Amino acid sequence: MSLLVVGSVAFDSVKTPFGEVDEVLGGSATYFSTAASYFTDVNLVAVIGEDFPEAHVQFLSERGIDLEGLSRQAGRTFRWRGEYSYQLNEAKTLDTQLNVFESFHPTLPEAYRDVPFVFLANIDPDLQLDVLNQVKSPKLVACDTMNFWIEGKRDALLKTLKAVDILIINDGEARELADEVNLVKVAKKILSYGPSTLVVKQGEYGALMFTAHSVFSAPAYPLEEVFDPTGAGDSFAGGFMGYLAKCGEVNDSNIRQAVIYGSTMASINVEAFSLDRMRALKQEEIASRYQAFKALTFFEEY
Amino acid sequence: MSLLVVGSVAFDSVKTPFGEVDEVLGGSATYFSTAASYFTDVNLVAVIGEDFPEAHVQFLSERGIDLEGLSRQAGRTFRWRGEYSYQLNEAKTLDTQLNVFESFHPTLPEAYRDVPFVFLANIDPDLQLDVLNQVKSPKLVACDTMNFWIEGKRDALLKTLKAVDILIINDGEARELADEVNLVKVAKKILSYGPSTLVVKQGEYGALMFTAHSVFSAPAYPLEEVFDPTGAGDSFAGGFMGYLAKCGEVNDSNIRQAVIYGSTMASINVEAFSLDRMRALKQEEIASRYQAFKALTFFEEY
Repeated sequence: MSLLVVGSVAFDSVKTPFGEVDEVLGGSATYFSTAASYFTDVNLVAVIGEDFPEAHVQFLSERGIDLEGLSRQAGRTFRWRGEYSYQLNEAKTLDTQLNVFESFHPTLPEAYRDVPFVFLANIDPDLQLDVLNQVKSPKLVACDTMNFWIEGKRDALLKTLKAVDILIINDGEARELADEVNLVKVAKKILSYGPSTLVVKQGEYGALMFTAHSVFSAPAYPLEEVFDPTGAGDSFAGGFMGYLAKCGEVNDSNIRQAVIYGSTMASINVEAFSLDRMRALKQEEIASRYQAFKALTFFEEY
Repeated sequence: MSLLVVGSVAFDSVKTPFGEVDEVLGGSATYFSTAASYFTDVNLVAVIGEDFPEAHVQFLSERGIDLEGLSRQAGRTFRWRGEYSYQLNEAKTLDTQLNVFESFHPTLPEAYRDVPFVFLANIDPDLQLDVLNQVKSPKLVACDTMNFWIEGKRDALLKTLKAVDILIINDGEARELADEVNLVKVAKKILSYGPSTLVVKQGEYGALMFTAHSVFSAPAYPLEEVFDPTGAGDSFAGGFMGYLAKCGEVNDSNIRQAVIYGSTMASINVEAFSLDRMRALKQEEIASRYQAFKALTFFEEY
């Protein structure tokens, strides 16, 4: 089934202990849709400026991503500049230029309004809800958010969460949203806000998935070189939602596998700058990493 | 097969966000041997002072722990006082009184010298090696250590590690020992020091096990109330080594299960102060928590 994502398409400038890149292809919707494109049809809703190169549009198009919702506006494309220390767990943002993203108020193309699977990437919660309201009868809605909205637009965020099935969020942000330290308590509280599933991303420690009846823990893949963590969370969300959309239905078994596909895409993506590792991935590479997660976590029954 | 542990028996005074206890039963060898006693025969090597109550000795004895190696000396028992914040990830040590532990130089009872399984808890690495040298032909030797020895007695520690099969250590200490941030690199380096297996304890994030050919990741059990983390690492080691000693042989499958039994005992132990949760545990409780780890981590094959 097809999958809609609304989020950012951006230029990222990133410095890690392993190197430095300037104005490479980035943005939450870019990472998400590229990762998801290995699983299902993706409809992209985002905005770019006059300076966005045709080669990037071409790449997304070649990944089979529907770009009718990618709107080119007068002005410059969204830009982010950040740096990672040796710990690689959190980016230090050095500069953010919203540019055309500042006045982004998407109207969905008619063809997008029937999509069954929706992902609202980390944007203004009012905008998330506005986009969601344009979708006729979504089967499954997931969203991401960040401390900026938790602190600055909490009421709007809580309103959006009421309409969302799955919240995918960092552990620090989950704790801030719930105002609790213990993650089990965090999950109970957040599930009371609306979502029936909470996925907590824990960076190098993997991910935890909570529903009212189930808890699932997935490790991160132990890599010798985490080259650039940028986009790991969005690649995770892309693999996760892409797999669920491919399945077409959501149950405990599918969601667990989706967490592993999310972890798979995230662990592959961090092996290079930008989304370079996801440019031409073979299905066998995805299968092989998925199997590596199985080998990593398997132990005999009692 | 029987299992020897050398380490501390102590009085702990602990404050957590959930309460406070004064001079309760603690110490690495105490937690270890109590946890291990649910799996195999344990020989305890440690020292206590004149003030150590008979009731504690009685408890250890009732757990079936062999106390011939528990030596009572003139003076006071080892004391530790610490405090945990709401994060519960690291104790702040407020006071340490070595007392009789300061001049602890154990001579193994004759009956202990044939034990096949040995655990050298976190004590002076010279002492660890000295005890190990008194064991005739150990089948499997594991040890723990801490930043105090990594920084203060690195050469002695490296000498001990040459004689050890399994190092069980915290992630921060593993990184310090290897002088690397990335855990895959940390593991490669530490495995070159002597041990064939490295178990990295990551607190609320679980544990990672590395050998030359295998990596295994175990989550921590998501508890709503971590009452007191004191002794979690030693309970982990006790469940881990206890299970291996029970199996009698060591292979990849057994070691993975041992990590889960270690995680099981640690997750049970933190549910109460001291080792109160391990005082009268039913085998069914251990089995049930083990199965909960299976449910927590299971996902379908590719």
